[in-house]
Amino acid sequence: MNYSKLLKFMLLAILPTASMAQQDKLSQYVKPLIGTAKMGHTFPGATVPFGAVQLSPDTDTIPYAVNGKYNGEVYRYCAGYQYDDPTIVGFSHTHFSGTGHSDLGDILVMPTQGKVQLNPGTADNPASGYRSAFSHDNEVAETNYYKVKLDKHNILAELTTTTRVGMHRYTFPSSDQSHIILDLTAGIYNYDGKNVWTFVRVLNDSTITGFRQTNGWSRTRTVYFAIKTSKKFKNYGAKYMDAASPYKGFWRKFDQQNNHPDLAAHNIKMHLDFDTQEGEEVMMKVALSPVSMRNALENMEVETPHWNFDQVVAAGKEAWEKELGRYQVDMLNQEDLVNFYTSVYHANLMPTVYMDVNGQYKGLDQEIHQAKGFTNYTSLSLWDTFRAFHPWLNLVDPKRNADIVSSMLAHYDQSVLKMLPIWSHYANDNWCMSGYHSVSVVADAIIKGVYQGDAEAALAACVQTANARKYEGIGAYIDFGYVPDDVNGTSVSNTLEYAYDDWCIAQLAKKLGKTAIEKEFTKRAGYWKNLYDSRIGFMRPKDSQGKFREKFDVLDTHGQGFIEGNTWNYSLYVPHQPEEMMQVMGGAKRFEVYLDSLFTMHLPDHFFANTEDITREGIIGNYVHGNEPSHHVAYLYNITKSPWKTQERVRQIIRNQYHNGPAGLGGNDDCGQMSAWYLFSSLGFYPVAPGETSYWLGSPLVKSAKIQLDAGKELRVIAENQSEKNVYVSKVFWNGEELKTFKIDHLAIMKGGELKFIMAAKPKK
Amino acid sequence: MNYSKLLKFMLLAILPTASMAQQDKLSQYVKPLIGTAKMGHTFPGATVPFGAVQLSPDTDTIPYAVNGKYNGEVYRYCAGYQYDDPTIVGFSHTHFSGTGHSDLGDILVMPTQGKVQLNPGTADNPASGYRSAFSHDNEVAETNYYKVKLDKHNILAELTTTTRVGMHRYTFPSSDQSHIILDLTAGIYNYDGKNVWTFVRVLNDSTITGFRQTNGWSRTRTVYFAIKTSKKFKNYGAKYMDAASPYKGFWRKFDQQNNHPDLAAHNIKMHLDFDTQEGEEVMMKVALSPVSMRNALENMEVETPHWNFDQVVAAGKEAWEKELGRYQVDMLNQEDLVNFYTSVYHANLMPTVYMDVNGQYKGLDQEIHQAKGFTNYTSLSLWDTFRAFHPWLNLVDPKRNADIVSSMLAHYDQSVLKMLPIWSHYANDNWCMSGYHSVSVVADAIIKGVYQGDAEAALAACVQTANARKYEGIGAYIDFGYVPDDVNGTSVSNTLEYAYDDWCIAQLAKKLGKTAIEKEFTKRAGYWKNLYDSRIGFMRPKDSQGKFREKFDVLDTHGQGFIEGNTWNYSLYVPHQPEEMMQVMGGAKRFEVYLDSLFTMHLPDHFFANTEDITREGIIGNYVHGNEPSHHVAYLYNITKSPWKTQERVRQIIRNQYHNGPAGLGGNDDCGQMSAWYLFSSLGFYPVAPGETSYWLGSPLVKSAKIQLDAGKELRVIAENQSEKNVYVSKVFWNGEELKTFKIDHLAIMKGGELKFIMAAKPKK
Repeated sequence: MNYSKLLKFMLLAILPTASMAQQDKLSQYVKPLIGTAKMGHTFPGATVPFGAVQLSPDTDTIPYAVNGKYNGEVYRYCAGYQYDDPTIVGFSHTHFSGTGHSDLGDILVMPTQGKVQLNPGTADNPASGYRSAFSHDNEVAETNYYKVKLDKHNILAELTTTTRVGMHRYTFPSSDQSHIILDLTAGIYNYDGKNVWTFVRVLNDSTITGFRQTNGWSRTRTVYFAIKTSKKFKNYGAKYMDAASPYKGFWRKFDQQNNHPDLAAHNIKMHLDFDTQEGEEVMMKVALSPVSMRNALENMEVETPHWNFDQVVAAGKEAWEKELGRYQVDMLNQEDLVNFYTSVYHANLMPTVYMDVNGQYKGLDQEIHQAKGFTNYTSLSLWDTFRAFHPWLNLVDPKRNADIVSSMLAHYDQSVLKMLPIWSHYANDNWCMSGYHSVSVVADAIIKGVYQGDAEAALAACVQTANARKYEGIGAYIDFGYVPDDVNGTSVSNTLEYAYDDWCIAQLAKKLGKTAIEKEFTKRAGYWKNLYDSRIGFMRPKDSQGKFREKFDVLDTHGQGFIEGNTWNYSLYVPHQPEEMMQVMGGAKRFEVYLDSLFTMHLPDHFFANTEDITREGIIGNYVHGNEPSHHVAYLYNITKSPWKTQERVRQIIRNQYHNGPAGLGGNDDCGQMSAWYLFSSLGFYPVAPGETSYWLGSPLVKSAKIQLDAGKELRVIAENQSEKNVYVSKVFWNGEELKTFKIDHLAIMKGGELKFIMAAKPKK
Repeated sequence: MNYSKLLKFMLLAILPTASMAQQDKLSQYVKPLIGTAKMGHTFPGATVPFGAVQLSPDTDTIPYAVNGKYNGEVYRYCAGYQYDDPTIVGFSHTHFSGTGHSDLGDILVMPTQGKVQLNPGTADNPASGYRSAFSHDNEVAETNYYKVKLDKHNILAELTTTTRVGMHRYTFPSSDQSHIILDLTAGIYNYDGKNVWTFVRVLNDSTITGFRQTNGWSRTRTVYFAIKTSKKFKNYGAKYMDAASPYKGFWRKFDQQNNHPDLAAHNIKMHLDFDTQEGEEVMMKVALSPVSMRNALENMEVETPHWNFDQVVAAGKEAWEKELGRYQVDMLNQEDLVNFYTSVYHANLMPTVYMDVNGQYKGLDQEIHQAKGFTNYTSLSLWDTFRAFHPWLNLVDPKRNADIVSSMLAHYDQSVLKMLPIWSHYANDNWCMSGYHSVSVVADAIIKGVYQGDAEAALAACVQTANARKYEGIGAYIDFGYVPDDVNGTSVSNTLEYAYDDWCIAQLAKKLGKTAIEKEFTKRAGYWKNLYDSRIGFMRPKDSQGKFREKFDVLDTHGQGFIEGNTWNYSLYVPHQPEEMMQVMGGAKRFEVYLDSLFTMHLPDHFFANTEDITREGIIGNYVHGNEPSHHVAYLYNITKSPWKTQERVRQIIRNQYHNGPAGLGGNDDCGQMSAWYLFSSLGFYPVAPGETSYWLGSPLVKSAKIQLDAGKELRVIAENQSEKNVYVSKVFWNGEELKTFKIDHLAIMKGGELKFIMAAKPKK
C-alpha cells in the first residue's frame, strides 16, 4: 500500500464513520478492513457474531486450478477480498475469516446496468464483464454494515445481515436496464467442475429458491438458499454454462433462458431486470440453509420478516455491542483500542452457526439432524484454534464453547470413521493440517467445567479418534512411539502434536478417574522425546528403522517432516511438558540461548519463502508468529532464569505483528486464533497448554480492563505504571495477594477478581 | 432369434418351472421374458407389483452418448436387457418397463471371482471385464424371482425383491478371491458426466449406505441406498473414476482405495471381497429410498428384517397372486393364458411406489414431503398410459389409481410451473411426449368416482396446466385455435391431443357444475377441426398465417408436425368427438374406406424407418399398434356401417401383436399401455375416450372371465361359441338384456354383472 492510501485508511480508521451514528459505541473501534491486505485473509463485509452469513465483496474470482493445475495466485483470495485490488466482482454470502486455504463465496450478487453481462470480466478491463471499479474513498466497513459505490454505473451498494440472512440495498441511477446479476457459478477457490449441481426455482416475480452443491475443500457441500427482492423484477433470465447435456427434452419444451422458473444444471448464471428511477433503492434478502430451500425461506421469514434495512443493521450492531461490551479496556492509545476491539471482532466470526431457525442441520453423514439443546457450529479450523481461541471462549463465552464441543461430538457421532473433526467444514471434514486437536478442545472444556454433557462419552470419542490407526500415521505412531519419516511426510509435527493431544486425553481421563486410559495416554504424551536428536539439539525425522534422517535442514519447512514451521520452531512444541523439554534440550541456560537465537537469527529469503501463509513482517528472527506452532514460545522464557524476556518478547510481538490498517496482520488470522493470542496477551496471560487450567503470565498491553465472565463475575486487569516503555512486570497480585509464580489458574479467575501488574521500564532479573 | 433358441424358450414358457413349486398358481402363466427381445423393452428381473425396486440383469451398458453425440444403439437397452445378448453385465435395481427412452439402472451389482476387475469389459470378450457369458438354458424368470448361472466363474445368481428392497443370493464356487462388484457408475442411458455425485459410507463389515445423483432423462435425480451382506466382507476397495480433483487433502490423509469407509466422488466403483467355500451362498440386500440413507436403512429393516431369501420370494409371489387372482379367465389355449397373465403382470409394474415406509418422499420441488393418506407413485408415462392403463386401473384397482391421481396433484402442488406431470420421473418431470394427459387421468378418475379428493382443486390444476402458455405452443394454441406449424415442430399431434385433453377438462367441469370452464374447454375441444385440410382429407400442419404447409408427406412421421405417428394415423385422433370427425372426413362411407385403407395399405420401408419404437411386426398395413396414437382406431368402425370390422381388426391385432416368446411384443410395452389395451380388448371392450364413462365394444378373446371389482362386486364376461374362427359378435347382453349399441357404461359394470357375447364365424352385417 502506498503512503497516501495508508493515510486515507488511517483517517477512515480513526475517524468514526458518521453513517450509522454509532460514535459512542464500541463498534467504532472495530475496523473490519484490518487484515484485508496481504496475508491477513480477513473479509471486510457484513456479518453478525458467528453468523452463518458473511456478506462481503469479492475483488477477484481467479480460478483455484486450471486443467487440474493449482494456481498459486488464488491463495490471495482466501477471503475473496484483497485491499489493493481495483475492482469488485460482486457480493457473496459465505466467507472464511483468515484461513490459508479456502472455499465458499456462495451466491454472488452484483448490481449492474445496461447490456446484461454474465461474465465477471477482468480487473484491468472491468467493462469486459459485470464487475466494477471502486475506490476506498467510497467504501465503509463497519460491524454488520458494508457500503461501497460501484463506479461503473454509479450504483451504491449497502450490505447487512442477520445470522442466516444477507440483506442488500442497491441505490440505482435511472434506467430501464437495471439488473441484479446472480452468478451461481462463482465461488472462492473455484475450478472447472467444482460446481456439482445447481437447482433454481423462481417462485414468483420477487422470490427465488435453490441450492448449490460443490466439490471443493469441502467434498460434498450443499448450500440451500432463498432470495427475495423488494421490487418485482420485470423480467429475468438464466444461462447454463455447462457443456450440453445429451438429453434435449427440456430444451425442446421450454425456452429456459427467459423467464423460465424451473432451472437445473451444473453451472447457472441469472439476471433479474428492473426499471429504476434515479436514486431508487432495490433491496434483496438472501437466506441460507444447510438443509433445504424450505428452511431457507423459514429462516428469512423468522429473521427478516420486513424490508427495514436500517433495522437489520442496527440489530446486528447491537449484537456486536453485546459481544464487544464484555470488554471495557483502557489502552495506551487509539490504535491499541482499534487493535483490541478488532481482535474481539475477528475472534467472534468463526466458527459459524450451521443450523436453521427450526434447529435442523445437515450432519457429516449427509442426513438431516435436529440439534437438541445446543447450537450447531461449523468451520472449525482446530489446528489453529485449539491454542488460544477455544480457551478464550472458555474464559469469556463458555456457553458458546460448550455448544461447539457439542457440535464436535455430534460430528463424531455422524462420522463413519469414528473421528472427532479435524477441520469441520459444512457437513464435511476437509482434513486440513495435522494432529487431532479436537481432543484438546474437548478436554480443556471439560476440565475447565465449561462442557457439562456426557464427559465419559466425550472421553471415549477422544480415545477413539486418537486410535484411528489409518489416519496420518497414527497406527505407526502407536506402534513405534513416533510417526516414522518413511510413513508420513510431516512425521515430526504429527508426532509432537499427537503427543500433546494425548496428554490432553490423559488429563481428561485423570479427571474422570479412568486410570488405564490416563496411563496409556500419559505414556503417549512423552513420545515427543523419541524424535529429539540430542546430537544436533533439534527434533528430527526418524525412519521406521529408528534412524534419523541424514539430509536435514533446520531452517527449512518444506520436505523436512514439518508443516508450517521449521524444526527451530517445532522443536519447542511440547507445551504440556515444557520443563522436561527444557531438560532434554540441555537445561535452562542452553534453552534460553536457544530461545534468544530463535528471536534474533536471520532467516534467509529462501527459507522464508518456504514458510507458508505469512508476510516478511510475520517473522521476528526465525520466530514465525504468522503461523501457529510457535504461539506459546514467547511464554517459555518463564521457565528459564529470565522470565522478563517473555514480557519483552510478548510486547515486541504485539507491537510488531498487530497494526491498524489493511495490512495490519502479519499472517492469516486463522479463524480468530491470531486475534485470540492478541487478546490473551494484551491482558497479560496465555494458555500455553490447553488441557491444564493454568495460564502463563506475560506482559499486559492494557492499562486496565474489565472482562465480563460467566454468572455475573468480572475479571479486572490493572497494569500500574503501564506505558510504551514499561513493558516489564515487577510484581503481580491476584486479589491483592502477590503471585509467586508466573502462572494464574483459570478456575480462580472464573470466580472473579483483580489481576494487578506493576509495570516497570526495567526487567526484574 | 434362431429356431432352436425359440424352441427352448417355448419350452420354458409352457412348462411351469419346478423351482418354486408354484405350479398350481397363476404366476405360472407369467413370463417376464416376453418383450425382452427387440422392441418390447420389458425387463425379465424380479419385482413386486408396482415395486420401487426392479432388480434385473443388464446385458449391456453401452453409453447413451459419447462426446455429447447420441448413440442410437443404446435404444435397445431401455430396460437394460436384450434377450439375444450373450453376456450379463450385472444386476441393477431400477428399470422402466417398456419405455422408448430411458434412465435408471441404479446400483449395479455383479458377483465375480479371481482378479478384481472394475470395468464391465465387452460382450465379445467378457474376460476383459467383470461381465459374464450366460445361457438361457440356465435362466429362470418368474414373478419376483430371477435366476441365472453366470458361466465365467460358475456363480449362480438369484434375485428377489420386496417393494423397496432387492435381495440377491449368490452361490459361489470355492475361492479366496470371491467378490461382489458394486458399479455405482453404471446406469441405463449412461453418458460421461451423467453421474453428478456419488456418496458412500461403509458403516461396518457388512453394511454400506450412500446415494447416487444423476443428470439424465430425469434432470435432478438422487437414489439413496443401504446395502447389507449376509457374510462379512474380509476386505473392500473403491476406485474413483473421475478426473482428479485439484484439492488433494483427502488423498494425503487416507488411502481411499482400500478399506476406506468414507467415499465421495462423481464416479465410484467398489468391490467387496470374500472367502467362499464350494457352494457357499452369500446374500445381499439393497434397499432404496428417494429421501435419505437413513430411510433406506429403515426400509430394509421394516421390509426384510431377516435373511430368508425364499420367504421374500414367496411373499412377493403371494403379492403377485393377489393381483393376478383378480382375474379368472378361460382362454382358447395356453398361449393366450400366458399372454393374458403376462399382460396383467406388465400392467402391474409401473408406475412405481416412490415413498419410504415412513411415508416420506422427495417432491418435484426437491423437498422432503410426507404423503398424507395416499401412496406416492412416480414414473408416470402419461402420453402412453392415459389411454387404457389408467382406465384399466379405474376398473380393476381404483384405489391405486386414486393414489396415482393424488400423486399427480402433489406433483402439481410442488410444481413451480404450476403444471400437472407430463412424465413424472423420480421427483422430476422429463417432459416427454406431447399433450397434457394428466388432465385425462384426473378427469376420468373423478368422473368415474374413483378419485374422491378435492375435485375442484383437481379441476383448477387441470385448467392451470392447460393454460401453461409457455409449454409446447399452448399459448399459440389458445390464441390461434391450433398450434401453428411455425411455432412448434409437432404442431398437429399437439393440437389434436390438447383438444382431446380440453374435452376431458370440459367433462370434469360439467360434472362439477363449472359452466364457464365447461364452455371454454368445450370450445377448445373442437380445435382439432382447425387443422383438418379437407382438400387432402388429412390433418395437416398450418402456420400462424393460416396457411397449410405445402410440402407435406402423409406417410412420413418425421418432420411433418407429428410425433410417433404419421397423419394417416393421427388424423383419427379425435377420440372425444368421433362422429363429428367422421362427418368432417366425408361421412361414414368414406370414413370406412379410410380405415380399411389404413389397415391394408403398404408402408414403404423408408417411412417405416421413420416410425419410432416398433418392429415391422408392430404394423398392420399403415396401422401402427406398436405406438399409441392409434390404439383406439380399430374401435372406430363401430360408428361406421360395419362394426363387425372392429371385431375383426381387434382380433387380428391381438393375434398379430401379442405373442409368447421374448419378441412377443411388436412395440414398446410403454409402462403397461400395450398390455392394458390387450386386457381390455380381450374382455371385449375398450375406453376409446377416457373422460366419458362409455366403453366401446369389440370382440372378446376370452371364453369367459371373472373380474374382481371394487367392494366385492364382480364382472363376468362370457363369450359363447368362442373360437379361433368365431371372432364376430352377433349379440351382446348385459345382465341378460341385449345391448342395442356398441357401448357399455363403466358405472353399470362397477355394480357387477354379466357381459355375454354371442360369438359367430360370420359378421353381422
